[in-house]
Amino acid sequence: MSLQSIKDVTDAQINPLTRLSDLFDADMKEVNRIILHRMHSDVPLIPQLAGHLIAAGGKRLRPLLTIASAAICGYPSSGGRHHQLAACVEFIHTATLLHDDVVDESDQRRGQDSANAIFGNESAVLVGDFLFSRAFQVMVEDGSLDVLRILSNASAVIAEGEVMQLATANNLETSFDQYLKVITAKTAALFAAACETGGVVAEMDKQTNQALYDYGLNLGIAFQIADDVLDYQASANKLGKAIGDDFKEGKMTLPVIYALEQASDEEKEFWQDAFVKDNLNDDSLKTATAICVRHDAFERSLETARMYKDKALQALNILPEHPARDILEDIADYVIDRTN
Amino acid sequence: MSLQSIKDVTDAQINPLTRLSDLFDADMKEVNRIILHRMHSDVPLIPQLAGHLIAAGGKRLRPLLTIASAAICGYPSSGGRHHQLAACVEFIHTATLLHDDVVDESDQRRGQDSANAIFGNESAVLVGDFLFSRAFQVMVEDGSLDVLRILSNASAVIAEGEVMQLATANNLETSFDQYLKVITAKTAALFAAACETGGVVAEMDKQTNQALYDYGLNLGIAFQIADDVLDYQASANKLGKAIGDDFKEGKMTLPVIYALEQASDEEKEFWQDAFVKDNLNDDSLKTATAICVRHDAFERSLETARMYKDKALQALNILPEHPARDILEDIADYVIDRTN
Repeated sequence: MSLQSIKDVTDAQINPLTRLSDLFDADMKEVNRIILHRMHSDVPLIPQLAGHLIAAGGKRLRPLLTIASAAICGYPSSGGRHHQLAACVEFIHTATLLHDDVVDESDQRRGQDSANAIFGNESAVLVGDFLFSRAFQVMVEDGSLDVLRILSNASAVIAEGEVMQLATANNLETSFDQYLKVITAKTAALFAAACETGGVVAEMDKQTNQALYDYGLNLGIAFQIADDVLDYQASANKLGKAIGDDFKEGKMTLPVIYALEQASDEEKEFWQDAFVKDNLNDDSLKTATAICVRHDAFERSLETARMYKDKALQALNILPEHPARDILEDIADYVIDRTN
Repeated sequence: MSLQSIKDVTDAQINPLTRLSDLFDADMKEVNRIILHRMHSDVPLIPQLAGHLIAAGGKRLRPLLTIASAAICGYPSSGGRHHQLAACVEFIHTATLLHDDVVDESDQRRGQDSANAIFGNESAVLVGDFLFSRAFQVMVEDGSLDVLRILSNASAVIAEGEVMQLATANNLETSFDQYLKVITAKTAALFAAACETGGVVAEMDKQTNQALYDYGLNLGIAFQIADDVLDYQASANKLGKAIGDDFKEGKMTLPVIYALEQASDEEKEFWQDAFVKDNLNDDSLKTATAICVRHDAFERSLETARMYKDKALQALNILPEHPARDILEDIADYVIDRTN
């Protein structure tokens, strides 16, 4: 066995995302086939640009949640509806990424040049619109008004969350509650919708669908808090985006909110200078990180994330036993552990 | 009677849009109420930005087409579904305008500063996403999969048309067929969907819905060709946007395509210099306009528009007799006559 394959095997053992992908390998291949097939358009730039982002891979975590949720609820793989709807979930996610990058003026996404950096903002906005519309076309073909309701609600909430985030940027008064609202809307809502969709396809009762929703929502919150910590810690390679991106965009994330709570007068001046006077660069990033460490702000943020992780685990309890359910448990741990 | 009121009365007599608005005054008041109610969000920037554009008015032509189509097909005003769905049509239209302005980097829209110029590109993209999602939420509440299919198809086609337009910009090889594809997708598809939705609400047969679709599609094509001519002729005040905007963005519209067909070598050099070397300014606009006049390119464009207008009128023939049907006839003439 080569060193690389040993590493791969070890990774597969410890990384529950890989284990979930492996468990649903055939399903995810079908989801990928549908994604490639349905992002087609006679306008060549559309599959070209969408493919740039979609081929870059990413974790496919959201469609995987739909597939896993449906399977846990006993929906047969041959049913096929969950494949179509998982593709819709990924299209909506990809559309928000494309629009996000325009908003953030990001140059990097998933470890490579972002679509807007290569193709221009105009194309990124319009191809996002196309993928979004295409998602709704596929849902209409599926024909479930419940699914359409779940995913149109999630889409509206995501947009609201992103606008809220713009409004709180560079604002040192941002409270924990406001932060929670923003990340619930911009991230957790789609996690929740992805899981609930799996339950709806399997025609589960209200209580089960609610549990799936709760798992997704709390997983999404934990995931985003960890992501916000990683922004200060991970290498660009690990996160697939540049370190300090959120900081440089003036995003008021949890580590900053916690550090601010305990700030000395001198530190308050620093935060003021950085966020309000928009002095956000590599130098101030270093200082910000040091202040966060001093006040244990990263660890306290992760502690908060663990609280939401526990809520996610609790929600899983009422679901039927299933190998995928066990992996979903591990994923809840993993979204936080990956910060180590 | 004051001079102003005489002018108003005369305008009402000659402008069929005003007459249609008057005929459906109560319905359009209800549509406006729904628009204001449903664009609400707890995130203040959303109704603020959406309101900026929606309050600026515009002609509300697309929702008016839905209301008129439903009425012609005998749908009772008290039914109410057409009010909701007309609001959806306007939301989709507004979302595309917001994203268009980001794409075009426009400073003016409906005769005032565009939303992106005031609120920034980020907000314009995200509020567009919100309105788009909200439209789908309202459609899901309405519960008709047919309407959802019609409007999700139109939305995907609009995005494709806009991308196509980007791809043909500054390209002197753009053919009439390509131009027709672009304007059919970016403009006519929503006109067609707006009309067809009225028929679906009234539960009409396939043939009637097809006639409504055909009327809307051909009206939309005629409308856009006339708009493209107006870009070279109308004052900013009349069109609600600056003169020469399309030209300066390198858009290959019909007058340019027709002028190019008959271009002398010297003129070819001019077009090359303007569009390919991106020499698009007030000076080159003057020359471009003069060349178009020389080759009758504006009049020939309007002649083509009249052909589509005739198709629109033909489609109206099979619809039930109704005062609104007569006004729709006049509107088909009006979209071209307004260029005088």
